[in-house]
Amino acid sequence: MQPVLRYLEEHRQEFIDRLCHYVRFPSVSAQPHHRADIDRCAQWLADHCRSIGLETELCKTPGNPIVLAKTPRKKGVKKPHYLIYGHYDVQPAEPFNLWTTPAFEPRIDGDSLFARGASDNKGQHLAHLNAVEAYLKTGTELPCDLTFLIEGEEEVGCTSLKGFLEEHAKELRCDTIVISDTGMPDLKHPALTYALRGIVAAEVTLHGPSRDLHSGIYGGSVENPAMALCQLLGQLRDKKGRITVPGFYDDVVNLSAYERKQLARLPHNESAYKKFLGVKELMGEHGYTAIERRSARPTCEINGLTSGYQGDGSKTIVPSWAKAKLTFRLVPDQKPQKILKLVEKHLKKLCPPAVRMEFEPGHGGVAYLVSPTSAPAQAALRALKNAFDCEPVLLREGGSIPIVNQFRKTLGADSLLLGLGLPDDNPHSPNEKFSLTAYTKGMKMSALLWPELAASA
Amino acid sequence: MQPVLRYLEEHRQEFIDRLCHYVRFPSVSAQPHHRADIDRCAQWLADHCRSIGLETELCKTPGNPIVLAKTPRKKGVKKPHYLIYGHYDVQPAEPFNLWTTPAFEPRIDGDSLFARGASDNKGQHLAHLNAVEAYLKTGTELPCDLTFLIEGEEEVGCTSLKGFLEEHAKELRCDTIVISDTGMPDLKHPALTYALRGIVAAEVTLHGPSRDLHSGIYGGSVENPAMALCQLLGQLRDKKGRITVPGFYDDVVNLSAYERKQLARLPHNESAYKKFLGVKELMGEHGYTAIERRSARPTCEINGLTSGYQGDGSKTIVPSWAKAKLTFRLVPDQKPQKILKLVEKHLKKLCPPAVRMEFEPGHGGVAYLVSPTSAPAQAALRALKNAFDCEPVLLREGGSIPIVNQFRKTLGADSLLLGLGLPDDNPHSPNEKFSLTAYTKGMKMSALLWPELAASA
Repeated sequence: MQPVLRYLEEHRQEFIDRLCHYVRFPSVSAQPHHRADIDRCAQWLADHCRSIGLETELCKTPGNPIVLAKTPRKKGVKKPHYLIYGHYDVQPAEPFNLWTTPAFEPRIDGDSLFARGASDNKGQHLAHLNAVEAYLKTGTELPCDLTFLIEGEEEVGCTSLKGFLEEHAKELRCDTIVISDTGMPDLKHPALTYALRGIVAAEVTLHGPSRDLHSGIYGGSVENPAMALCQLLGQLRDKKGRITVPGFYDDVVNLSAYERKQLARLPHNESAYKKFLGVKELMGEHGYTAIERRSARPTCEINGLTSGYQGDGSKTIVPSWAKAKLTFRLVPDQKPQKILKLVEKHLKKLCPPAVRMEFEPGHGGVAYLVSPTSAPAQAALRALKNAFDCEPVLLREGGSIPIVNQFRKTLGADSLLLGLGLPDDNPHSPNEKFSLTAYTKGMKMSALLWPELAASA
Repeated sequence: MQPVLRYLEEHRQEFIDRLCHYVRFPSVSAQPHHRADIDRCAQWLADHCRSIGLETELCKTPGNPIVLAKTPRKKGVKKPHYLIYGHYDVQPAEPFNLWTTPAFEPRIDGDSLFARGASDNKGQHLAHLNAVEAYLKTGTELPCDLTFLIEGEEEVGCTSLKGFLEEHAKELRCDTIVISDTGMPDLKHPALTYALRGIVAAEVTLHGPSRDLHSGIYGGSVENPAMALCQLLGQLRDKKGRITVPGFYDDVVNLSAYERKQLARLPHNESAYKKFLGVKELMGEHGYTAIERRSARPTCEINGLTSGYQGDGSKTIVPSWAKAKLTFRLVPDQKPQKILKLVEKHLKKLCPPAVRMEFEPGHGGVAYLVSPTSAPAQAALRALKNAFDCEPVLLREGGSIPIVNQFRKTLGADSLLLGLGLPDDNPHSPNEKFSLTAYTKGMKMSALLWPELAASA
């Protein structure tokens, strides 16, 4: 193990230069005019994987190419097999004028490397590639087989990945998937994310009169759809911050005492959090902390409201219709389709007869949970502890990573989410950055992870 | 009198062409980008008044110009003086896509002339101008002095008119004011409107986080301003359709048994009314008929809702703010400023502490009531009867004409409301129209009105 760690230390500058090179590709998947940059970036990545000794394929898909890179297999030797997932595509860099220096010209300032894609996700999967390079270049035998799957459509919905996984299900079948694409509270709190929230969306429209009406001539004799919508949606949440839809909480797996204790260990400064969000007061479901509310409890959010006149001044009408965009964040084991049905049924029951309700179901994804006491999770926690020299924390994320459900379904394996991002990394925002310490310690974590995982298999 | 009526008959097509020309001006006072159209429209109107023999002034105001046009006065002859009020500004035409043909390109279909402003109010005051033209062009002596006051800010609260009336109080002092800006039940029920509702407007904005937030990462721990707005506004009306603001009904003058009997005489077919509005069910304050609800009872209407993402698909955010445009229709003797204060106080009390409420008061006007048995009212009823050849009815209108209170206050005169609009004219809505029969009979009514009024003086 020592040669591997020494190699990582001795090549530190080279790894930084490599990341600088990698982030120069403007591999923006959302923007068609960057299609050639996507191809160049994927080609460079494949060449790099080959150069460090991985058996590499640049795979065509209906969308952007996928890089598949494997450690050389020893014939007849059966080792555990782990898949490392990452993505080389990045978010658009707009608005460009808010960047201190250009988005695709890396700048190092102190411990930070600024560039689009530095944290999300080039720096994070490059850390794993560098760790494996150290094994291969020092001739240190890996206790497992590894396959890197690095795709180019994560920022646009992973469209091609599902088909690719189904087509390559046999060769990709593995014991565990490792993904570094989430975050940790700070450098003293390396983290294993063991749960994600799910989501389900819907659009509710209340139709009243066949057109906007003069509120003087007709107002008072006909239902106002905007008022009806307010009264309808207002009933979805009670005074204790709980969602009133009957059956909504039936499938919720409540937090265990152990989990609540772990979540309470997380660094959290309420006044700093309020200041960061720009609010005077926090609020949410009674009986839960802010961290629990935003990661381990389901929610009902109104994402948008539209009705009547929205321009300057006043327009004295009874609007013809009123609309709301809704999303519900879900937790294990809530099922998106079941929740949609419960919500629709409840709203239909509450909807006054003087308006007509239209309910349009939207996209959905289930929540995710792996046991933090499983052997692979415990192995990951040991690797985090030894690499960062601190006690790691257990995290639940409030957002969704739909791909982990796809992996579970197609490859039958759970994902270990070992994110290296910091809260101020600005992924998806101007001035995205990546901590060079997170990068270096991430490589060490990866190097330590494979023996731990293999030993626990 | 005969030459006047003959002139009106012989020039019918010319009057229709003139109205078509007049409605082509998109004189939308609420939208600053139409400012030049306002000026062009006022200039055309002034030129027209001059061309028919009126002594005309295009008066500058701090806002939109006012057209003042007088019949030539005979020196030393003291006649009764009547003021005819109208407005050349119109409501915004949005949403444009709901118009069968463009809002500012007049279309005649059967007895209807379709265009924004056709009924509200260009067609209605043009009928009076045409009648006076008939007197002037045929050399028929008017038994009274007439002054037309046609302004350009009626749809945005008549901001400049108050100062103008005060400044010109002496020359505008008159016996009665005549306004055609209301409606009649149908062409067989010409109407004198003896009461109007008042109005007061406000805009309520709830401010939450300083920017739209990722609903996965933060949702559940911070108030959603759109949900808070729904819950806040939903509480403004109870299950019996009554407004919950404490003190709201304190100054309401209840309907007398006589009035309820008169209103019950009006033609009203509930299933036709529902069909016309395009609703399955009517609704409103318990204990009142539809006619009473929309004319003699106060209301609270949401005119517009705006929050978060309103485009295609879904955007998973907690919006930074949510806004509603509100208007309250008032009845005698509710006072707009007092109601605004009560509403603001009530909303502030109900507003949750996790959002910041901004309450922006809007325009207001008190309700209006005149005796239908006064001499000028009786004169008007005779003119209506002879022009339309039917028994006229007595109406209360649900809408507001704040200016009648200003006239009463500044000029010391009551207003006769002799509206020519029909219930399906769609003022303030797409496909506004005006009945050509109402236009023609309206001119005749105006021609007959001046001798009746002068004889009753």
